[in-house]
Amino acid sequence: MAEPLKVGLAGLGTVGTAVVQLLDQGREKLLARCGRAIQIVAISARSSGKKRDFDQSRFRWVGDPVALARDPSIDAVVEVIGGAGDPAKRTIETALAAGKAVVTANKALLARHGQKLAILAERHRVALNFEASVAGGIPIVKTLREGLNGASFSRIYGILNGTCNYILSRMEQDGLAFADGLRDAQRLGYAEADPTFDIEGHDTAQKLSILASLAFGTKVDPHAIYVEGISSITLADLDAARELGYRVKLLGVAVKTAQGIEQRVHPTMVPRDSALAQVMGVTNAVTVDAEGLAPITLVGPGAGGAATACAVVADLADIARGVRTSPFGRPAALMTVIRKAPMQHHEGGYYIRLLARDRPGTAATIARRLAQQKISLESIVQRHAAGSRGAAQPGRSGEAVPVIMITYATSEDAVRKALAAVRRDRVISGRPQVIRIEKN
Amino acid sequence: MAEPLKVGLAGLGTVGTAVVQLLDQGREKLLARCGRAIQIVAISARSSGKKRDFDQSRFRWVGDPVALARDPSIDAVVEVIGGAGDPAKRTIETALAAGKAVVTANKALLARHGQKLAILAERHRVALNFEASVAGGIPIVKTLREGLNGASFSRIYGILNGTCNYILSRMEQDGLAFADGLRDAQRLGYAEADPTFDIEGHDTAQKLSILASLAFGTKVDPHAIYVEGISSITLADLDAARELGYRVKLLGVAVKTAQGIEQRVHPTMVPRDSALAQVMGVTNAVTVDAEGLAPITLVGPGAGGAATACAVVADLADIARGVRTSPFGRPAALMTVIRKAPMQHHEGGYYIRLLARDRPGTAATIARRLAQQKISLESIVQRHAAGSRGAAQPGRSGEAVPVIMITYATSEDAVRKALAAVRRDRVISGRPQVIRIEKN
Repeated sequence: MAEPLKVGLAGLGTVGTAVVQLLDQGREKLLARCGRAIQIVAISARSSGKKRDFDQSRFRWVGDPVALARDPSIDAVVEVIGGAGDPAKRTIETALAAGKAVVTANKALLARHGQKLAILAERHRVALNFEASVAGGIPIVKTLREGLNGASFSRIYGILNGTCNYILSRMEQDGLAFADGLRDAQRLGYAEADPTFDIEGHDTAQKLSILASLAFGTKVDPHAIYVEGISSITLADLDAARELGYRVKLLGVAVKTAQGIEQRVHPTMVPRDSALAQVMGVTNAVTVDAEGLAPITLVGPGAGGAATACAVVADLADIARGVRTSPFGRPAALMTVIRKAPMQHHEGGYYIRLLARDRPGTAATIARRLAQQKISLESIVQRHAAGSRGAAQPGRSGEAVPVIMITYATSEDAVRKALAAVRRDRVISGRPQVIRIEKN
Repeated sequence: MAEPLKVGLAGLGTVGTAVVQLLDQGREKLLARCGRAIQIVAISARSSGKKRDFDQSRFRWVGDPVALARDPSIDAVVEVIGGAGDPAKRTIETALAAGKAVVTANKALLARHGQKLAILAERHRVALNFEASVAGGIPIVKTLREGLNGASFSRIYGILNGTCNYILSRMEQDGLAFADGLRDAQRLGYAEADPTFDIEGHDTAQKLSILASLAFGTKVDPHAIYVEGISSITLADLDAARELGYRVKLLGVAVKTAQGIEQRVHPTMVPRDSALAQVMGVTNAVTVDAEGLAPITLVGPGAGGAATACAVVADLADIARGVRTSPFGRPAALMTVIRKAPMQHHEGGYYIRLLARDRPGTAATIARRLAQQKISLESIVQRHAAGSRGAAQPGRSGEAVPVIMITYATSEDAVRKALAAVRRDRVISGRPQVIRIEKN
């Protein structure tokens, strides 16, 4: 039997604690699977004196995670401290430079420094594994890095943020307003006290940037992503979506176009019978399109201690077996600068909801502005506000009537220009709601 | 740059041809990903003179696949001949014994000789990869073998046969009778001229036996599986399923119970909102349950040249990178004999459809027989035969009335005994229809 893989654990929050427990529970199975034990020998955490659910005396405690990363008795470091800066960054850099394999769940750090860290790992011929950084328990990193190596990816898109999907699910299933859905998510611990990072799409964007790099071989670049959150979504939108055969999900989408890689995060209408439309609650899901192949979808728990720890342990098992792949599935030095397809050139169908002023000529004006941009409508519905729960109220003066339109494929630019013109024409109240449609 | 991986391809049917094409198309990408080229140098196929879609003169042609497997200039052999016996078996054995890595799509061979071949591969320290053998383009083998190494599996179940799922989908969506759905599948090439192997569940059973071994570390043993096909399913069942909130799918299920591993293939009622219920047409899907973890589901193309070739190429890419895991994720010598949980002890809900004779005392008799076996009913519906498309005809004498019951969790044994008693009581016509319910 080979020597155990000696692991240093940096960070002992929910995920770190779950890793300790999972390695304990899975000891025999992992030994059989890897041909050697995986053993945590030292831990670095902010408060080593805290009461915890396991016997802490088994482990050596190291105050500074960077010192842990340098410790010559350790083969691999698990970084679950979090955050795009130090000490997480220096911990990982120090471990890699010292020839130790690293497992991390740190999406923020990878989104910012992914390529540099990968180059460092490759230079020192050690593994840098990060299954836990995207979609928790779903093995999407391994799937893109190894499992679908035969495929030429054309699009990868999915539900990468459980908080948003939980809120949208509650809104749709129970008729909660956005604010109530958010409050409920906070009560259950699915949303932070300050939920901005999740609900405005930034968490999804970081994860998408990692998946896009794995799929397309481009440098990780979250700044190349167009980001829009879900806080503007109303029950009127969800009701309209239902009637029209769609559901609204916050998606991260990376797609190859003639112009380059288009990366975007926004609320999206997905066909009601698509795999992604079925995904409710905090569950995550990713769909991969490849040339000549029917779509492949992975669905599962996106967060939580157990799911994330499961991904960390799988990454450790690969290291214990001596398996090492380039972190992003190809030599990091060959990762290309992303050729960004600008959002104005995005092409697709659009859902547009307006509050039209109820006076002569309004319909004609809107129709003319759309026609000027060569936008054709698949459907148009003028709704009585009373007919729909939580629909936007009719204007105070009783003058505004909701109008819902679905366009055929057009460009972002055309939609923006048409709606700007309609606003200038003063035939609508407030801002139009625009939701992009993603076909499967 | 390292030497190319030199591949010998044994078999040039749909899959073999797609492998040649995919390696051509993906040359640059694979070179970048693996750090070396993957190059087919020799091919063995039954008729080397046949006209094909690619330039055949590039390859050396070897008549005998076993000679190909011995060829010292070859590093890895792809076996896509098929069949549980020779020449596929001898080809793989010869290649492994000669220290060559093997990639195979051969579920029949693995189901019968999986452990022996894995032991041979491990003895010679070479890879034996078989992603393509189960669920085509879905990377479920890698996911169970590596991606979810942190998890302790409790159940694995899924739609593993596209032919059956296509037929059931057509029946449900278009109201076709089973025979018409089958004929349609044959016309489209989704079903063989002799469809028995698919529709009676044997194909699913072979695949399930491989997944069960990967998940539970047991020897591959298709004979430990209870198998029932879909040919008895009628539109009356699908209509009743819809009304009751279910869909009918042919599932392969392997589940850990107190008695051992229960493995079964049968038509199954799955809740309409479950991930598996959404899977229509020839698509495959597998759900994995692990302790303390929300379910993980993988959905994608289950068969076809492109999807299968994609899996073969991913397996080759791992070999090119020098990655090698035990074929079944743990040393094959440690794979245990399956402790088979007998089907009589299966516990779960049941859908039962009877044709009850319309005379005094029938209902009381049926109720008494169920009560004697301690079976409680969640619902009971007595239907007018005319109310439902394609429902079983009323008895010739006008006497039989369809009765549909859903039981609470009970045992297979209890259901069988109760229904045998009801038949002896002569209160029903024909055989009762029984469909097991699988909760998610």
